[in-house]
Amino acid sequence: MALIVQKYGGTSVGSAERIRNVARRVAKWRAAGHDLVVVPSAMAGETNRLIGLAKEIQPQPDPRELDVVAATGEQVTIGLLSMALLELGLKAKSYSGWQVKISTDSAFTKARITTIEDTAIRRDLAAGTVVVVAGFQGVDQAGNITTLGRGGSDTSAVALAAALKASECQIFTDVDGVYTTDPRIVPEARRLRTVTFEEMLEMAGAGSKVLQIRSVEFAGKYRVPTRVLSSLTDPMMPVAEEAQAGTLITFEEDPIMAMEKAVISGVAFNRDEAKITVHDVPDRPGIAYAILGPIADASIDVDVIVQNVGHDGMTDMTFTVHRNDYAKAMKILKTQVQPHIKCRDISGDERIAKVSIVGMGMRSHAGIAAQMFRTLAEEGINIQMISTSEIKITVVIEEKYTELAVRVLHKAFELEQA
Amino acid sequence: MALIVQKYGGTSVGSAERIRNVARRVAKWRAAGHDLVVVPSAMAGETNRLIGLAKEIQPQPDPRELDVVAATGEQVTIGLLSMALLELGLKAKSYSGWQVKISTDSAFTKARITTIEDTAIRRDLAAGTVVVVAGFQGVDQAGNITTLGRGGSDTSAVALAAALKASECQIFTDVDGVYTTDPRIVPEARRLRTVTFEEMLEMAGAGSKVLQIRSVEFAGKYRVPTRVLSSLTDPMMPVAEEAQAGTLITFEEDPIMAMEKAVISGVAFNRDEAKITVHDVPDRPGIAYAILGPIADASIDVDVIVQNVGHDGMTDMTFTVHRNDYAKAMKILKTQVQPHIKCRDISGDERIAKVSIVGMGMRSHAGIAAQMFRTLAEEGINIQMISTSEIKITVVIEEKYTELAVRVLHKAFELEQA
Repeated sequence: MALIVQKYGGTSVGSAERIRNVARRVAKWRAAGHDLVVVPSAMAGETNRLIGLAKEIQPQPDPRELDVVAATGEQVTIGLLSMALLELGLKAKSYSGWQVKISTDSAFTKARITTIEDTAIRRDLAAGTVVVVAGFQGVDQAGNITTLGRGGSDTSAVALAAALKASECQIFTDVDGVYTTDPRIVPEARRLRTVTFEEMLEMAGAGSKVLQIRSVEFAGKYRVPTRVLSSLTDPMMPVAEEAQAGTLITFEEDPIMAMEKAVISGVAFNRDEAKITVHDVPDRPGIAYAILGPIADASIDVDVIVQNVGHDGMTDMTFTVHRNDYAKAMKILKTQVQPHIKCRDISGDERIAKVSIVGMGMRSHAGIAAQMFRTLAEEGINIQMISTSEIKITVVIEEKYTELAVRVLHKAFELEQA
Repeated sequence: MALIVQKYGGTSVGSAERIRNVARRVAKWRAAGHDLVVVPSAMAGETNRLIGLAKEIQPQPDPRELDVVAATGEQVTIGLLSMALLELGLKAKSYSGWQVKISTDSAFTKARITTIEDTAIRRDLAAGTVVVVAGFQGVDQAGNITTLGRGGSDTSAVALAAALKASECQIFTDVDGVYTTDPRIVPEARRLRTVTFEEMLEMAGAGSKVLQIRSVEFAGKYRVPTRVLSSLTDPMMPVAEEAQAGTLITFEEDPIMAMEKAVISGVAFNRDEAKITVHDVPDRPGIAYAILGPIADASIDVDVIVQNVGHDGMTDMTFTVHRNDYAKAMKILKTQVQPHIKCRDISGDERIAKVSIVGMGMRSHAGIAAQMFRTLAEEGINIQMISTSEIKITVVIEEKYTELAVRVLHKAFELEQA
């Protein structure tokens, strides 16, 4: 008998029939004696429909009012899912973000959870009620409705699991776990039975779309055992089997396991970015801020940043931004930055890809980077940028080589073998 | 400079373009120096869509969860309308029912407003902000979302006007006022410039669909000057002209005006009911309760009730119910009532219509009923039931005579003449 938080994505609740399937799955876990908190997303397509309506009215919608509109998507599904559970004879009750309440800061459209009140939920759970909580939304100190941004329902679920000290947070989605890489590109890609929190974090950052990165951060901060698994399987799959399905994100570091574990856990990639280089800037203190300050002021996120050692008092700085922000970033650099810093030139490239290898084992193994670079070189793939962390090595390459790079790296590190 | 509450119906906010028109109208009133509280309904069709979704999941949706789902319709429009106002350069802010907060009892799907907190709204109004409040919804003492039932946005608007002591509550709808009868049946039907609260109440009860009856009750209880007017006119119609448009519901009783006023203000009708007669029941105390008690227990509303003087210790009781409840009511009577009260027979008729004449002047004029009955008799229309109040006479007739009865009564009481 454990407390389990289950999150269901938009596809899983995309129709009346699918909502009924979610209810059957929840009922099965309840029948096995567990306490359940269920966090559904909005029905597939609904959030986009609502944002589309808003943009028809106001091309750049007011963030406070956009959250008022967008939060209704999840409010509809909590009501519908509660009905489906009641129809199966279970006790069930829905909670919107403010009813829980899930408190956030006031950063509309990308708010962060600050606290979660658990009194009412615990009371309902003690009475045998399945508690259905709206994902993606909260309420700020002034009582305004807030949303957590795309994928925010994952964060809601993990945060609830943390607040309630749940045994496990199960993220039901349309993939059946975390893979060594995207199976659409590498058919031999293998599902990982476990992945460490740190690896998951690096994979999310590197473009793996399985979990929103903020939910992974939350899972790590509060050590919430989080399992990614499929909602497309038979809802009546035995509980004992489903409890072992998918991929579990772990925190315990068992030295024996770590030794036996593969060096590299996965290959991630991302084609959403563009590269910008500022050429021949004076190599002096403050130059990075002079370039990236105005970019940050425009709320443009910068990802990989590389600055090499200078030559003749000059250096080049290269960084990547989301492709949607590319034109805006170039304009800022040319109008606000170039006039002040006397660089020689500013160039950019939208046709790049970021490819990363991720693995806890990397920390204790030398030569991983060298093996990665050699593998790419053997295929004639030029590396434009390199960036490394403790457990990840990222390279930026020409976009057209993405699939090839992912495939050869997956093979080179023998990821198809369990 | 006055405080005005404006309510806009579902058709008025049925598309992005229409929402922009509402915003223009509001902006016009704001530019004339008035403080504005605006109460939109859900976009046309949205509430039905949401209820349809709920019924797909649960044929008889759980009332609490149905309110959670249904309340999202108005939450979407407050956000969108606020955006449209902001886009026009106005200050605007949306409030859901719980944010105001509008407190109600816990009768889900048909809750009643108990109190309205006005602090936040007043603060916003003082700062020059147009306040946009979700109609149709509130929150009960336990923090559950409630809705007020069909047409509830009218009630929200009138209740807000009462709480804020607004100068006027303007109900913008797809008709341009209250008519002497339905213009689709009597082309000569005339728009009333004013109508008393009591007349409006009787007309609403008799089937006139312009305003929800509960909103009229609210207007009467708190003496809120309420004006019904069209949202389909040019939004830029001059404020001075629009302030005189439509039909104003009044409370002052000016004896001179009352004398000059027509005896009858309107002819209302309703084809949604069915008639049930319980024949030859013992004429003894408690018999009405024995018949109608089980009907009320099944939450079936009974409208007209007629019981004539008895004969030989027996009497007949006839009453009307909504046509949707007819089969259910008949079943209750035959299974739960007939075995106990020993009546001779129970008969019913679904093809009836209720026709009423309404007017404050009726109180001081004799012979109105006689004139009504004679007018119908001259057309060969048989009267099946008669029920009277201070300012209304209702008859039940065969359904096929509805249009004819309405037309001849409209003419007999000279309603086409101002």
